[in-house]
Amino acid sequence: MTSDLEKQLSFLAEADRLKEVLRRSLTTGSRRQENSAEHSWHLALFSLVLAGHAKEAFDQGHALRLILVHDLVEIDAGDTFHYDASGHASKEAKERIAADRLFSLLPAGQAGEIRALWDEFEADATPEARAARSLDRLQPILQNLRTEGASWRKYGVTKAKVLERNRAIETAFPGIWEWLTAELDRAEAEGYFEGEKTG
Amino acid sequence: MTSDLEKQLSFLAEADRLKEVLRRSLTTGSRRQENSAEHSWHLALFSLVLAGHAKEAFDQGHALRLILVHDLVEIDAGDTFHYDASGHASKEAKERIAADRLFSLLPAGQAGEIRALWDEFEADATPEARAARSLDRLQPILQNLRTEGASWRKYGVTKAKVLERNRAIETAFPGIWEWLTAELDRAEAEGYFEGEKTG
Repeated sequence: MTSDLEKQLSFLAEADRLKEVLRRSLTTGSRRQENSAEHSWHLALFSLVLAGHAKEAFDQGHALRLILVHDLVEIDAGDTFHYDASGHASKEAKERIAADRLFSLLPAGQAGEIRALWDEFEADATPEARAARSLDRLQPILQNLRTEGASWRKYGVTKAKVLERNRAIETAFPGIWEWLTAELDRAEAEGYFEGEKTG
Repeated sequence: MTSDLEKQLSFLAEADRLKEVLRRSLTTGSRRQENSAEHSWHLALFSLVLAGHAKEAFDQGHALRLILVHDLVEIDAGDTFHYDASGHASKEAKERIAADRLFSLLPAGQAGEIRALWDEFEADATPEARAARSLDRLQPILQNLRTEGASWRKYGVTKAKVLERNRAIETAFPGIWEWLTAELDRAEAEGYFEGEKTG
């Protein structure tokens, strides 16, 4: 019979595969594609450092837990580009099946607890989920700003699309959104976006 | 004048460089060298999942905070291999200089708070630091067990050395240590170690 510890270590070994899931955003140093494991760490650090800018107070430890598990389903379902409308249609079903498989590697009681963290992130209905999800949108925008809009240009993302798809930041972190919209204007002037010209 | 937000975002951009710091351990999928950012995420997940095995109760949210920042100094100081005695002699001074530079990118009050997390991890004197540091030793051992001892063999690490250098796990997670010593015996029989034969 498999012990609880062995189940937990199997889950942690399976989680290792998130290091192989590549995102569209680049790292700012070597400019390779960022993977979802290191992105999750970076996002957790965003939450730790930027918590004071949140409009709505949130429990920092709990937000960190949501962030740590939020992308695990990508091990099976892959990363869906935030500006890919067709990918988003099938995303939810694929990710739910992935969650069923992955979290059930854990001992039964703990599987439910960790699965609940992922469900909470997805449901976007608590202050912690709202903060975590908004920062999850902010982080790749900053990667783009620091790499001359590399993935925006590669995939033809317009400034209008970035503004439209990331309004969650405005609600959860209004001060950051204000700074960000000015930066996006500057980025546009620098030619970081492809697609339609505004103005 | 640089605003607090701009300082925080500069710090988070600088933190991105941890994704380029390579460790000796391999990922279990593509078997490339793991970087310190994705290692930090994996370690945080270890803490989330294995907390129940700790001998001494600890605050999970606080342990996560220690883990998130524990390797940031490697951006300047590089990763020191756990079995490299000469590297460890200069490690402390280099890392302290790195901490002085990195954390001072943050607004003054927050710089002190985040620096205190790193100091606490290093001092190994709280239940959270002891748990985090023990798991930091466990994680690369498991990466080795899952990659047929790749970095042990590459760098000539013996089983005796692994046992000797990782006793912190025995103190903080005795049940895991018991499982681990049996696994290390099995690994030795499989030829995962180089160097002296025991028995």
